[in-house]
Amino acid sequence: MNYIEIVGFTAAILTTAAFLPQVYKTWKTRDVSALSLPMLIMFITGITLWLVYGLYIHSPSMVVANAITIGSSIVLIYFKIKYSKK
Amino acid sequence: MNYIEIVGFTAAILTTAAFLPQVYKTWKTRDVSALSLPMLIMFITGITLWLVYGLYIHSPSMVVANAITIGSSIVLIYFKIKYSKK
Repeated sequence: MNYIEIVGFTAAILTTAAFLPQVYKTWKTRDVSALSLPMLIMFITGITLWLVYGLYIHSPSMVVANAITIGSSIVLIYFKIKYSKK
Repeated sequence: MNYIEIVGFTAAILTTAAFLPQVYKTWKTRDVSALSLPMLIMFITGITLWLVYGLYIHSPSMVVANAITIGSSIVLIYFKIKYSKK
């Protein structure tokens, strides 16, 4: 692994780790009022395109980071739909 | 501009646009209780490393996306510090 992939993986760990407390907080509180479904869909579409980009440029760190973030976003969308119901 | 940069720029627009409502909401409500300063610092460090990565691999879309997100994160950190004061 070359130096730039170490930079990429460090970036991946930091940005995905910063996202996880949101998932945990939503799961614990079941408060989805602050989450907007259109925003989440926009975000997951963007992240999916970053994954495509990472695959195309053969960037392991981008692929791993975006795959984890897609997973987290799917969980948030699931919570949003589930807990928004009366 | 090649096709993959179009994918990258579309991804950049979607992911940064999904981030901006958070900045706007925080500015309007001045409610920073949901924001964690360590998390914000972790996030901005990660995004800065993604910017370094984007510069290294000569990816215009990654550089633009991460530069905008760094700007938004600095604004959020500023709000967090300013509005956390009694």
